[in-house]
Amino acid sequence: MEDKAQIHEAIKVQGELVRKLKSEKANKEQIDEEVAKLLELKAQLGGDDGKHQFVLKTAKGTRDYNPRQMAIREKVFNTIIGCFKRHGAETIDTPVFELKETLTGKYGEDSKLIYDLKDQGGELLSLRYDLTVPFARYLAMNKITNIKRYHIAKVYRRDNPAMTRGRYREFYQCDFDIAGQYDAMIPDAECLKIVHEILSELELGDFCIKVNDRRILDGMFAVCGVPIDKFRTICSTVDKLDKMAWADVKKEMVNEKGLSEEVADQIGEYVSMQGGMDLAERLLQDQKLSQSKQACAGLSDIKLLFSYLQLLQVTDKVVFDLSLARGLDYYTGVIYEAVLTQTGVGLGSTEAQQEAHAEDSVSVGSVAGGGRYDGLVGMFDPKGRKVPCVGVSIGIERIFSIMEQKAEASAEKVRTTEVQVMVVSAQKNLLQERLKLVSDLWNGGVKAEMMYKKNPKLLSQLQHCEEAGIPLVAILGEQELKDGVVKLRVVSTREEFDICRADLLAEIRRRTSEA
Amino acid sequence: MEDKAQIHEAIKVQGELVRKLKSEKANKEQIDEEVAKLLELKAQLGGDDGKHQFVLKTAKGTRDYNPRQMAIREKVFNTIIGCFKRHGAETIDTPVFELKETLTGKYGEDSKLIYDLKDQGGELLSLRYDLTVPFARYLAMNKITNIKRYHIAKVYRRDNPAMTRGRYREFYQCDFDIAGQYDAMIPDAECLKIVHEILSELELGDFCIKVNDRRILDGMFAVCGVPIDKFRTICSTVDKLDKMAWADVKKEMVNEKGLSEEVADQIGEYVSMQGGMDLAERLLQDQKLSQSKQACAGLSDIKLLFSYLQLLQVTDKVVFDLSLARGLDYYTGVIYEAVLTQTGVGLGSTEAQQEAHAEDSVSVGSVAGGGRYDGLVGMFDPKGRKVPCVGVSIGIERIFSIMEQKAEASAEKVRTTEVQVMVVSAQKNLLQERLKLVSDLWNGGVKAEMMYKKNPKLLSQLQHCEEAGIPLVAILGEQELKDGVVKLRVVSTREEFDICRADLLAEIRRRTSEA
Repeated sequence: MEDKAQIHEAIKVQGELVRKLKSEKANKEQIDEEVAKLLELKAQLGGDDGKHQFVLKTAKGTRDYNPRQMAIREKVFNTIIGCFKRHGAETIDTPVFELKETLTGKYGEDSKLIYDLKDQGGELLSLRYDLTVPFARYLAMNKITNIKRYHIAKVYRRDNPAMTRGRYREFYQCDFDIAGQYDAMIPDAECLKIVHEILSELELGDFCIKVNDRRILDGMFAVCGVPIDKFRTICSTVDKLDKMAWADVKKEMVNEKGLSEEVADQIGEYVSMQGGMDLAERLLQDQKLSQSKQACAGLSDIKLLFSYLQLLQVTDKVVFDLSLARGLDYYTGVIYEAVLTQTGVGLGSTEAQQEAHAEDSVSVGSVAGGGRYDGLVGMFDPKGRKVPCVGVSIGIERIFSIMEQKAEASAEKVRTTEVQVMVVSAQKNLLQERLKLVSDLWNGGVKAEMMYKKNPKLLSQLQHCEEAGIPLVAILGEQELKDGVVKLRVVSTREEFDICRADLLAEIRRRTSEA
Repeated sequence: MEDKAQIHEAIKVQGELVRKLKSEKANKEQIDEEVAKLLELKAQLGGDDGKHQFVLKTAKGTRDYNPRQMAIREKVFNTIIGCFKRHGAETIDTPVFELKETLTGKYGEDSKLIYDLKDQGGELLSLRYDLTVPFARYLAMNKITNIKRYHIAKVYRRDNPAMTRGRYREFYQCDFDIAGQYDAMIPDAECLKIVHEILSELELGDFCIKVNDRRILDGMFAVCGVPIDKFRTICSTVDKLDKMAWADVKKEMVNEKGLSEEVADQIGEYVSMQGGMDLAERLLQDQKLSQSKQACAGLSDIKLLFSYLQLLQVTDKVVFDLSLARGLDYYTGVIYEAVLTQTGVGLGSTEAQQEAHAEDSVSVGSVAGGGRYDGLVGMFDPKGRKVPCVGVSIGIERIFSIMEQKAEASAEKVRTTEVQVMVVSAQKNLLQERLKLVSDLWNGGVKAEMMYKKNPKLLSQLQHCEEAGIPLVAILGEQELKDGVVKLRVVSTREEFDICRADLLAEIRRRTSEA
């Protein structure tokens, strides 16, 4: 009973929060989130009352895509897939769940975020956490030693969702990877070229691609005096530098991870360095760092990488940044991450709005990331045979969020269908004639529709065209039928022409191919 | 220990089965299935030995799609999406899992096939079983009263997989639905037009679309004397007529479902009837059946439907078939199902092969199905407000199976990339020049690739083009660089032309747009 009182109290508090947000006209998604919480609380009560209170919502951290969002999603996917295909990639698909043991031991601390399926008899299964581990499993299982493939699919993480910032529990990944034993840095350079192409084409505003190498980080840790068994956990701490100030990162290193102040300070000096090929050259001469063979191998490869990036014309956006660490355990060589440094143009006109957006863009953070993982496939091969891999993953949900904001801010209407012409009737009792005409149009490959009413009003038919952005109307009336013509109306100009039935298909194609 | 001996025995038997299948050159998928079972058995032993034996496989009833299968899948999807868009549909997407209670009470006996997620704290979740229930949940949740949408996504059923026949535990559904209060049979007729268009365009061979109405079935049960609480279960039994003979169906009705012989025989008479609009007219005069108001409403609508189908030019493939029942509980009106009556042309040349394929096609069975479900959305609405819906689902996995068989049988090569031109070098030390050229091509929107080697052999570069079906080769050599040209080679004819660097993009576009 005490429980029930607590829930009542929680409902009261939550209800007030929702009312407050609504009165403040807060972000719709934020309101939806809080309303969902409220409904959940009420449902808990409902159960107690013995009356079934149905909760009408999607699972926590997930969302539906409405037609408008799908239209934007399709546009973004087309750009990304277009780029992957331009670079000659094949595509594969893998199941949404894997044997649980396939995912075990691949994600370090993040393993707790994996969704498991219930044991209903049979195999123990988990939802995929990313596309990289299933890719490595696929390569090992099919004994594939070289492939260039992309894979676009949803992955699942039981993380704390922050949906207003594009962080979901179910989200898309768009991965491009090159597997195979090749000469150093050539496929790696192509991955960066791809990030450059995609972010440029999507017009998300200015961006920066940070590059580093796990071997440089490990060499740096070694020469600074980090014990070898702390390399990965210190690497995770360094990775937080994009969200935390150095002072706090240092505190974590010293207080939580047990480094001495001196060691941490030495690391601090290195991770503040940014530059280009020149920095790699300078560090190759660095008295301390050059003592590490690993660091030198990494630095030489960074030099080589920059020379290729120059030929690929992308050095304008690439920075060698020693603070870049990346969270995942499986990287073995070069790593990279792209961040937006400003949001797209036209988002806000006043200075205050622009400032607000600039802050937003900081919170959006990384929009692409990846690196080299030469050991992962070997973990799946019974004989441990390695297949070197390098790849990149585009952070598509964040890009969707930005594109949706842009679409909302711009006056341009997002069309959710591609209908070219609407078949309408000017008088009653013409359903049969409309069906015949629309059927002819469909058979001729024209995108067409009509209202599912026997006698719709002409005005409501025309109104639908305006709202849905349909460019043409094919009007049937007694007179047109008698004359063997169709009245074709151009919605934007309201011009009307009588077109002979035999010429209609060609005329519609001509008028819609121009658009 | 006894367990272990049993497993050893099982491994022996299974090993022999695999060897036998391989020696008989059995179907690859079948072999893979049996090998997977063998590996699972071996893994059980491994566990006993304390040594971890890693099982390298996908979850039971699921599969990877390789690039070749993906190329076929993309082609099929493009045809289907093209048709949905031609009919003016928007698209939506919903999460792969729903709250468990959203799926509860929607699938009758099949509910046991739903995959549940493990309770890891938080909501109880299940993988979606179809796209229709999430669609209804979406409509109710967003208070949408009319929409025409398609949705292509994977659904999950813990069924007994028969992968060689295209039956998986993870499989795609391609759904098109029209929701809204409209005049009778107009949207229903469009759904059948869509099935007709898609199956014709995919060239899967001849097909037949069976049509019936739940109200006719219910009226028939009533006038034959079936108790009202047995309508749904007798409906499920009638549904088995496409796989079982009438004698066996009758046995189930009498022995398992408790009907009298006489009642069963009366049903047997009706369900043997097939025809067109004429049959509907005849049954409206049927002394017994016409006593049911429900049956008459259904029969009148079938008549109206056929009149619209005539205008839409699809009656050649549509049959009014009283034995069609459909498994799902939620249908309330017209129902339909498309079956292939022969496989595609060119599958086998000898008579024996053709016969074998004819048998295959029987096992393939239904490739599309759907109907009207006017009550489902109301089950989700707090006030029970109904939104009438009608839709169709394309059975895409079976279509993939057929298309793959067709591709295998035909000599035509399936390309897995769209690369237009490969940049190759004729001599050593031209990596930089290749990078510069391929970068120019990518920037110009050309699909291009190069080998990730410093000094690849000319022959192996050309060989790759032949294997991958790349139509053009851009050859760089000392002489070409000196002359400011690129040697463009047409792979199919082995012709070679020197093209000025400035004209290269236009020349490649010209030559690949012809193909």
